[in-house]
Amino acid sequence: MDNGLKMLLDGAVEGVAKLHPYIPGKPVDELARDLNLNVDNIVKLASNENPLGPSQKVLDAIQAQLSDVTRYPDGNGFELKSALSARYGVDSGQITLGNGSNDVLDLIARAFLKPGKNAVFSQFAFAVYPISTQAVGAEMNIVPAKNFAHDLPAMAAAINDQTQVVFLANPNNPTGTVFSRTEFEAFMAKVPDRVLVVLDEAYSEYVENPDYPDGLGYLPSYANLIVTRTFSKAFGLASLRVGFAVSHPQVADLLNRVRQPFNVDSFALAAAVAALADVEYLEKSKALNDQGMAQLEEAFKALALSYIPSAGNFISVDFGRDAAPINQALLEKGVIVRPVANYGMPTFLRISIGTKQENQTFIDALKEILA
Amino acid sequence: MDNGLKMLLDGAVEGVAKLHPYIPGKPVDELARDLNLNVDNIVKLASNENPLGPSQKVLDAIQAQLSDVTRYPDGNGFELKSALSARYGVDSGQITLGNGSNDVLDLIARAFLKPGKNAVFSQFAFAVYPISTQAVGAEMNIVPAKNFAHDLPAMAAAINDQTQVVFLANPNNPTGTVFSRTEFEAFMAKVPDRVLVVLDEAYSEYVENPDYPDGLGYLPSYANLIVTRTFSKAFGLASLRVGFAVSHPQVADLLNRVRQPFNVDSFALAAAVAALADVEYLEKSKALNDQGMAQLEEAFKALALSYIPSAGNFISVDFGRDAAPINQALLEKGVIVRPVANYGMPTFLRISIGTKQENQTFIDALKEILA
Repeated sequence: MDNGLKMLLDGAVEGVAKLHPYIPGKPVDELARDLNLNVDNIVKLASNENPLGPSQKVLDAIQAQLSDVTRYPDGNGFELKSALSARYGVDSGQITLGNGSNDVLDLIARAFLKPGKNAVFSQFAFAVYPISTQAVGAEMNIVPAKNFAHDLPAMAAAINDQTQVVFLANPNNPTGTVFSRTEFEAFMAKVPDRVLVVLDEAYSEYVENPDYPDGLGYLPSYANLIVTRTFSKAFGLASLRVGFAVSHPQVADLLNRVRQPFNVDSFALAAAVAALADVEYLEKSKALNDQGMAQLEEAFKALALSYIPSAGNFISVDFGRDAAPINQALLEKGVIVRPVANYGMPTFLRISIGTKQENQTFIDALKEILA
Repeated sequence: MDNGLKMLLDGAVEGVAKLHPYIPGKPVDELARDLNLNVDNIVKLASNENPLGPSQKVLDAIQAQLSDVTRYPDGNGFELKSALSARYGVDSGQITLGNGSNDVLDLIARAFLKPGKNAVFSQFAFAVYPISTQAVGAEMNIVPAKNFAHDLPAMAAAINDQTQVVFLANPNNPTGTVFSRTEFEAFMAKVPDRVLVVLDEAYSEYVENPDYPDGLGYLPSYANLIVTRTFSKAFGLASLRVGFAVSHPQVADLLNRVRQPFNVDSFALAAAVAALADVEYLEKSKALNDQGMAQLEEAFKALALSYIPSAGNFISVDFGRDAAPINQALLEKGVIVRPVANYGMPTFLRISIGTKQENQTFIDALKEILA
């Protein structure tokens, strides 16, 4: 390599050069290209997407945006913030909009983490926490999980003088585990006020456990709590990238300083407003998820496969041996699921809940492979 | 303030807490709300948007995406990278896609700048350079402009051992100035190989000067050059947020590590592919811009107002006194232009080139105000 280029690259920020980028679910088009398959015969259960298809109200909202393609979005997201404010009983000044909740998590890392500081999160937790933490050169303070779930007492004990942020995922992806109100309150009682607790509720809409702590309801109690949510899952807008955080207004003010002014596009803003109003779509999505979860659990039981009970729209199943060959065999049958070896779970595959037919296609393919 | 909250906020990253966020052009809806005006009577010439309205090919591409609203975008942007690669004669591996070129500029700052390092850029340069530089805690090495243009010899001389990045805007926003091939080559000859030169060509499609250096053509010559472009201006996709950078593949690899995996949404990816193919739209946009620029220059001459000759799709006009009251009077007449006091140009307003009718509405309003 040219010496100047080497010096240029050596000058890059250390954390960035060492980053392993996020590994997304394989896109349908990519599998079709790779294995010369017909796109229409591919089932993708890899990215925790909503299998219900688009909400008609969302499609209408997108149509209404077409005439404004050439115009910049409203950088302040006035209408979406107003809609969120009304729906969740929070002030607009508490809201930070993101290009997906990934963006919000990244903004938190940029605003609060730096070299010499650390972020506490659990083993098997969502992959964006280590990426965003490392990207700003901060240290990862990873706490071993307990039965694949967050060990909240151990996480509280892991907080030290250099800890600035704790990331909690409830439910957690890819394990689907949840913690209860009692566990959360006991945890918060032990966290110093100067530490920001990020409660990532990307999958909260799917949870039916009555002991589940609704993060937004806790905001008045804890000034150091920030709740993140997404429109990519139950609201069905993964293609458009919208997420948000709700926090103390002064925390929101900091995040909005580092936020790119037009981070959420016009179509995403309008679609999110429409999705929020489509209560029927949300109910249907949850019902479809419940049915699909039962269908997969039953199939795993019939195949004598153990799995981690999940509160989300996905389930991780354990093959008791390297799952990579099973994943490859599924791909060759046109079924895309998610390997989670990069989460330290090499014997598992994570299956997103699909439609009844999609789930059945997966189950049939799996049966053939395991036979 | 609660002591815990104070300690939490004190723990925020220093550069972030001090940031002054980007001030976008006032959205039409916001002005309508503020002054109780009818949206249809408002003319917005504030954000360098394309006044031609949407390309039909783009609208068709958006329609084709509707069925996939619930699916994540292709995080690698395979099709858009392929289209860019074919159009500009570069390799896909050289490309970094961004949520607007703002995102790409931010990725560059995150990958190459940190406390103790500095970025060189010009006085009056695009506002994202100081924001992205400060957000990562690096220092701004700002070089006085010469007749509102980049003083390239002075910028080369300002590079020191701590300089990691130089931002060049050609044309520059909000001044519209350009530098020539000869000036650029003389500059690059003086820049150490270890310093990354960012050539921001957001407005390049509008330039007709035969001496204009086409950044992409220089990439084989300079491993430390990165060219950024956007689909928000001549391509007419401001609402959708797509930009890109082309660089040495190893620089692109670094940027893609810190890039959020789904930073560009599915609609934006598809629309950009369509916009790139719509050669006729681009030609019409340029012709409309030329006519509008002539119309505004003529009006300014008639009003004895001086302006900075511009190669972009906007023009900054000097009122020789505080321009804020003139801006306010324009708002009250339903005309939104851009104050540039935050760029250190308090006597100027920046006017985006609109349609003939929009330009005339602005000119008529201005005449009334100045009379």
